Formats: sequence, structure tokens, C-alpha cells
Amino acid sequence: MTAERLTAIYHIRDDAGRIDARAAGIAVEQSVEMPVAAITDRGVLDDIVGKVESVRDLGGGVFEARIGLSVATTGLEAGQMLNMLFGNSSMHPDIVLADAEFPESVLDAFGGPRHGIEGLRKMAGAGNRALTCSALKPQGLPPEGLAKIAAQMAQGGLDFIKDDHGIADQHYSPFAERVPRIAEAVAATGSGTVYLPSLSGHLEQMRAQIAVARAAGLKGALIAPMIAGVSTFQALVRENPDMAFMGHPALTGPGYIAPPFLFGKLFRLLGADAVVFANHGGRFGYTPQTCRDLSQAALASWGGLKAAVPVPAGGMTLARVPEMLQFYGPDVMLLIGGDLLSAGPRMAREAARFQDAVVKAA
Amino acid sequence: MTAERLTAIYHIRDDAGRIDARAAGIAVEQSVEMPVAAITDRGVLDDIVGKVESVRDLGGGVFEARIGLSVATTGLEAGQMLNMLFGNSSMHPDIVLADAEFPESVLDAFGGPRHGIEGLRKMAGAGNRALTCSALKPQGLPPEGLAKIAAQMAQGGLDFIKDDHGIADQHYSPFAERVPRIAEAVAATGSGTVYLPSLSGHLEQMRAQIAVARAAGLKGALIAPMIAGVSTFQALVRENPDMAFMGHPALTGPGYIAPPFLFGKLFRLLGADAVVFANHGGRFGYTPQTCRDLSQAALASWGGLKAAVPVPAGGMTLARVPEMLQFYGPDVMLLIGGDLLSAGPRMAREAARFQDAVVKAA
Repeated sequence: MTAERLTAIYHIRDDAGRIDARAAGIAVEQSVEMPVAAITDRGVLDDIVGKVESVRDLGGGVFEARIGLSVATTGLEAGQMLNMLFGNSSMHPDIVLADAEFPESVLDAFGGPRHGIEGLRKMAGAGNRALTCSALKPQGLPPEGLAKIAAQMAQGGLDFIKDDHGIADQHYSPFAERVPRIAEAVAATGSGTVYLPSLSGHLEQMRAQIAVARAAGLKGALIAPMIAGVSTFQALVRENPDMAFMGHPALTGPGYIAPPFLFGKLFRLLGADAVVFANHGGRFGYTPQTCRDLSQAALASWGGLKAAVPVPAGGMTLARVPEMLQFYGPDVMLLIGGDLLSAGPRMAREAARFQDAVVKAA
Repeated sequence: MTAERLTAIYHIRDDAGRIDARAAGIAVEQSVEMPVAAITDRGVLDDIVGKVESVRDLGGGVFEARIGLSVATTGLEAGQMLNMLFGNSSMHPDIVLADAEFPESVLDAFGGPRHGIEGLRKMAGAGNRALTCSALKPQGLPPEGLAKIAAQMAQGGLDFIKDDHGIADQHYSPFAERVPRIAEAVAATGSGTVYLPSLSGHLEQMRAQIAVARAAGLKGALIAPMIAGVSTFQALVRENPDMAFMGHPALTGPGYIAPPFLFGKLFRLLGADAVVFANHGGRFGYTPQTCRDLSQAALASWGGLKAAVPVPAGGMTLARVPEMLQFYGPDVMLLIGGDLLSAGPRMAREAARFQDAVVKAA
């Protein structure tokens, strides 16, 4: 029997004359990480050492190497999976982890989103249309200040409100005081807006935060998997199948893991129901093609996994709503933060304009 | 009273005409992440919004921006600290988190290494000389195979043996079976070699692994903080002040966080007693200057923090021992993995040669 493998796909900037040796080197680095000639165990040689499946010239000095890695080495554990996919090779500035293809067994083991885009639409009572979201800011406000802003956004009828990812468990606004206060303020509007508080710290702290959120009647949370650690994220998703998780891009880096793979496949595989990413034309540098690839990956038919809803963000404005809906279609959650917050006393009205624009476009 | 700030130092590739606006943008992104004009709260404006302290031309199209960030926003929690230092800005390919300067309160709160280089020397009975280490490989071997290799390395008298970072909790070699077996094999040699098993998974899994290691009489462990999540790492250091922690570079990326800062300051601040990094002239691309800066940062006098021992690695050989000792001096741990493993049946003898070379150089 041949041991099961996943295929890791790297983009490597190197010379044509060196690329085969380079790919072979990555296959070793991402598996046994020692001279293969010194390995005497037949099982390790056959089933554990990485195998170069193909090398292909992509043009412009970049090559694609497809490398088969043993599924067994991942232990079907998220952190170890990332370690095997890119742990050491991440340190090479000329290698990008572009993609990976997983056998059915891996998809089944991780399970993907527990709710997915359809689950989020149901939570928000949104039919088949695009979803709306805003971000509670600024950090530094006490609980009552944030609750007041959240209430205004909810009065506008938004589907979702998430905490700014900078809002954590600071002394000026502790999670356990802040989250129930905001949840209450949102619920009091009767809008049905779903509020997603931001989780921070380690697994035990996040579990306590989820317990607080649950007690406040909330149905989901925001998490930055690359800061929390993907193992922590995986554990929370497993332990809380009734909660929805929105993945935040903090610390995802400058593209050394290709965003379409990281957000559209890896975060989705681990259970992100929604993935926030930097939309083109905002404060960050993703191209339209990257955004399209990312959203298509998040939504693509993939084994039995539910679709994760793409959440383009990062300096989006009301003025861009029609263009974004045209670009992404209805399977999207539009996130507008600062532009709504800038409306000050007119925030509820601006939120309603945002909501109307999305509802009417459906 | 002015709120306490840390200084985050970014290197930004941009045009001279745009750099001031760029720095101001980062100060906002890494703090309130919304238009400052829309903030009405005086306390947030004064104490929470990031402040550009200085911008300086470093030449070659790169500028240094020093930005004061509120210590309160970090909640003195490792993950949130990293989030505030670089969460969103990590996505810009033209920004590097080059360094940070922390007030005394931050150093005190995190505490740094519990053992440091002097503690590790005591554990290994090594006096004031450089330390030696090797890596147990390949993953894929069953516990008895790894125990046999570990015994050979220990017979050679090495100070430390660490698991390969790819060795986790896989079905072919579960942590709970493997680690006691290896610990026993190492102890049976009477060499006094300190064995550091590799931790994987989330906090709860790592706690269970540490309990196994402890029961096997072990005094430390290996952890990859960027995979585990820095919050998980911080928690383990706090909970296990008697255990030594070696930090592994998996997933540290292609330098988007400058290695001297990441390894020499951040991992040290969080409690790494030893920091493994990619030595120049090996399989990875760090320059001699990067390695020197990193090791100097890890060892520098820094508040009351103990020194972390730099562990240059990644394709090192016996032949390089004299050159590495000359480059790093005695405050170093030399890690040779594959080159020893390649010795096969002569492994114990080669390990002894490595140990002798280091002891005699002292």
C-alpha cells in the first residue's frame, strides 16, 4: 500500500538550471529534513520523504514545483499541517506556498466551515443576497462607548457587526464587561444584527471569552488564526460547532503564503465561515486577480465542505458598493468600517443606506 | 499623566515625498484603524492613537519610521502585542517590522527567559563554554528507532538533543510513547545530555506533552512560537518556570519581521532560553550581519532579562565548528543535525568529535 499524500504547490524564483535540485531540496526540507542518503529505514524512504511530482516553468523566472508530502506527517493537526507545508521553507524569500491539494481524508478530518455562507445568511435572515458588516472601533473606548456605536450600526439594519481586531481584553474595556454590554445594545434595536466579538489570547482565554459570548446570546466570534495559532482555531471550531467563526487576516504577511490558498482554502478547511481579506483598491496591495482567486477558492465546490463567505475589506466605502457587488456577485459579505464611523451622528442613517444598497441590488 | 508607549520601528520602502503620510498611516493602522478625524473621545486621541516619533532616510529607498504605540492596547498579552506591532501592516510587502523598544513595564510583565544561557549551561554542566546540540531525525521512525539514534548522540557526550521540529504526535510515533523511550535511552548513557522534545498542537495538548516530558524526567522542550501562537508560548513559559524552552524558527517567514528583533528580542521577551535560527552559509539565506545582529540582541543586557542563547543551525557541519566559534564566541549553542546523522554507525564517534572540538576551544 502506498501511503497517502497531499500535494504542496510552491512558486520558486530561481534559475532553470537549478530548479530541479531546488525542488528536490524543498521535498526533503518539508519532510525528513536530513540527507536522504543517511536514511536506512525503508518505510521512511518510501512513505515519509517528500516526492517531487512535477516542476513547471511559469515564466518570468518563476517555477511551480508540486511536491507530494505524507499525510501521516501532519498528524491531521492544523499546526503540524502548516509546519509540514511551509515551516522551514517559509524562511526563503524566493519561495511562496502557492497552493495545496488535499485528499478526501484531510477534508473529512478538518471538516471545514460548520455554517458557511448559507448558515451565515440564515443567522442574518438574509435570503440569497450579499451580506453586510461593519467594524466596531476605535479601540480605547470603554464598553458603553462601543455599545453606543454598535447600537447605531444595528439601527441601520446591518447583518453583522464585528469587533475591530485590535479590541482584545484590555483593562479599559475588558471582554467580560464589554461584550455583554454591546450584545445587549445590539439586541435592543430589534434589528437581528449578528455581533461577532474578537477573541484574543490562548486557547483557555478564548474558551472563557466564548463562554461569555454564549451567555450574552451571541452566535459567533472573530479570530485571527495566524496570531492565535491555527491549532487553537481548529480546537475552537471543533468545540463550538454551533458558533460561527470569522477569520481575520492579521499577521498573514506579505503574500509568502498565497492569499487565495491561505484564506480561501486553509482557513476554510479549518472552519472559517467567513474570511476577511484586503480588497483591491483599499489600504492594502492585493490585486483584483488575487481577490477574485481568493473569493472563488472560498466558494468553490470542495469535497463536502461548506463555502466560506469572502469578506473584502480594508478601507471600503459606501461609494464602492455597486462596483464590489458587480465584482464579487451576491456570494460576498461587504465590510465597511471607517467610512461608516466617519458619519458620526449620521451613522445609523449611513448604515441604513449601506444595507439598502445591498438589499436593493439583490 | 501621559499613557505609556512602546516604540515600534518599521523599515518602509517608499518615495521620500510620500513617506511622512505613509508613517502616519501606519500609526493609525496599528492603533485605532479608523479615520482619526472621526474620533471624538479625548482619551483615545491622546493615549491610544499611534504617534509618529520620527522618520529617517536609511538610503536605498528605505526609510525608518519610529511609531509610539500605547502599551495599554497590548493588554500585556503576547498575541495582542504582535497584533498591535504588526497585525495588519504585515500584509504590506514594502514594510518590515525592524525592531521595537519596550518600557520597563513590558519587560517586567513578560519576564524573558526563566533560565537563559547560564541556566542551560548549568543544566548541561558546561561551565562557561559554548554548548552543543543535535537534532533527532528523521520523522517517520518509530520510538525505538529514534531512541537508538538519541542514545548514540548522547554517547558522544552532546550537551543537548532536540527533536526535529517535524516530529510531532503522529500515529507512527506518538509523543506519549516516544518521549519516555528516548528520555530513558539518553539517561541510560549517563552522559547528562539534556533532551528537548518538540511540542505540537494547542495549549491543552502541549500541557499534556509537558506533563509526559516532566514524568520522564526532562527539563525542557522545543516549541515553534509562530506556529503555536505566541500566546500559547507565553502561557507555557509562565506555567513551567522550571522547564527550559528552545524556540524554533518554523513559519517565521522571509524576514517580514526582522530576524534580530523576532528571535533576539520578541522570542526572548516571551521566555525563549535558546533561539534556533538559520545560520549564514547553510541552507537558508540569512547574511552574516543578520546572524551577528540576532545573536547580539539575544545576549544583550536588557533590563533584568536573562540572555537567550543563539543557536545557529540549518545545514551546519563539523568542519564549520572552529569558524562558528570564532564568529559567535563562546555564548552560543552549535546545532549540527544532518551531518551527524550522516555518520550512520559512526554517529557516537562523530558526536564525540563535535563535543571535543567545542570543549577544547573553550
